[in-house]
Amino acid sequence: MTGAADPTARRRGRRTRTESADTRDRILTVAREEFSERGYEKTSVRGIAKAAGVDSALVHHYFGTKEQVFASAIEVAFAPALNAPEAVAEGPLDDVGERLTRFVFGVWENPTTRTPLLAILRSAVNNETAAAVFRRLIASQLLRRIASQLDAPDAELRAELAAAQLVGCAMMRYVIKLEPLASADMEQIIARVAPVVQGHLTGP
Amino acid sequence: MTGAADPTARRRGRRTRTESADTRDRILTVAREEFSERGYEKTSVRGIAKAAGVDSALVHHYFGTKEQVFASAIEVAFAPALNAPEAVAEGPLDDVGERLTRFVFGVWENPTTRTPLLAILRSAVNNETAAAVFRRLIASQLLRRIASQLDAPDAELRAELAAAQLVGCAMMRYVIKLEPLASADMEQIIARVAPVVQGHLTGP
Repeated sequence: MTGAADPTARRRGRRTRTESADTRDRILTVAREEFSERGYEKTSVRGIAKAAGVDSALVHHYFGTKEQVFASAIEVAFAPALNAPEAVAEGPLDDVGERLTRFVFGVWENPTTRTPLLAILRSAVNNETAAAVFRRLIASQLLRRIASQLDAPDAELRAELAAAQLVGCAMMRYVIKLEPLASADMEQIIARVAPVVQGHLTGP
Repeated sequence: MTGAADPTARRRGRRTRTESADTRDRILTVAREEFSERGYEKTSVRGIAKAAGVDSALVHHYFGTKEQVFASAIEVAFAPALNAPEAVAEGPLDDVGERLTRFVFGVWENPTTRTPLLAILRSAVNNETAAAVFRRLIASQLLRRIASQLDAPDAELRAELAAAQLVGCAMMRYVIKLEPLASADMEQIIARVAPVVQGHLTGP
């Protein structure tokens, strides 16, 4: 495996580590930073490779196209979030709305998870390829799992409308920073939003 | 007045019309197109001037900084929307949720108004200056007016949470294009969303 990627690097006289989890992780960390700072369109595989101190060919070898690098970077950043639906779905269905609302605001209130989330949102809003990655990963993986817990014929639409309330709140509070929402007490927001999310998911 | 702007254009040997509503309108139309296509950051006053066939100085003379050109372009694009809160607020308060929901989806379903709206959303998500313009124009003008109709101490927060549901739906349906929401029947969406918007605005 390593032989397929390293020769290019060696040809250019650049010293790279052998294929290892370390190098992959480093590339992904750098990729996440680059996508966060520049957005999808302005980020290049070349730039990621340069910042990670490896050859572009190695980035392509590990991850494929820029779109695939982006998807991998998102997946790593969202590993906790992508595993969350089980935690959200666990427990009684009649307060799943509050659990989901607390989970989503928890991710946004935490600066470590907010930064990559902002990057994904920005990229998805600006670029069709990034939007497709967003759809596939976040939407399908998160929302389909929540929908699968619901006993309703329009479960997926319900999950999406619940998510729309949460995404809209995040947009207004963390991105547009609209007052009074941006400075409102979290419990006050949860008290107003959780019943709406619950209503979308399990209401009549 | 005209004398203040034209000399620059004349100095560079470029023929421009005298200061007139026509020229201003043309610059604004071009500005809207440029901001729509490129987003706030990649759009320059120079590029707008070039596309409008006038000198940059004339654009600055009429509108000021790039931020001010952006604000003016939004204001023109949203003149109908900015005048809508009265229409939305007219009529009984107990179906203001449905009127607001139908109004917002009406704007998004119409390609003529969707394009500048997308441009504003994209710019606001990506750029702090554009976000500030968004806050001031759309948010303050639209939401404050709706809030002023409500008889509640937290009227502004209510209006913002209602708007968050609508903005989130627009994001998921028109920008991210998440299925089944993206293809769902409009009346089905309105039937689910309008009561939520109503609840935010006038609920307990």
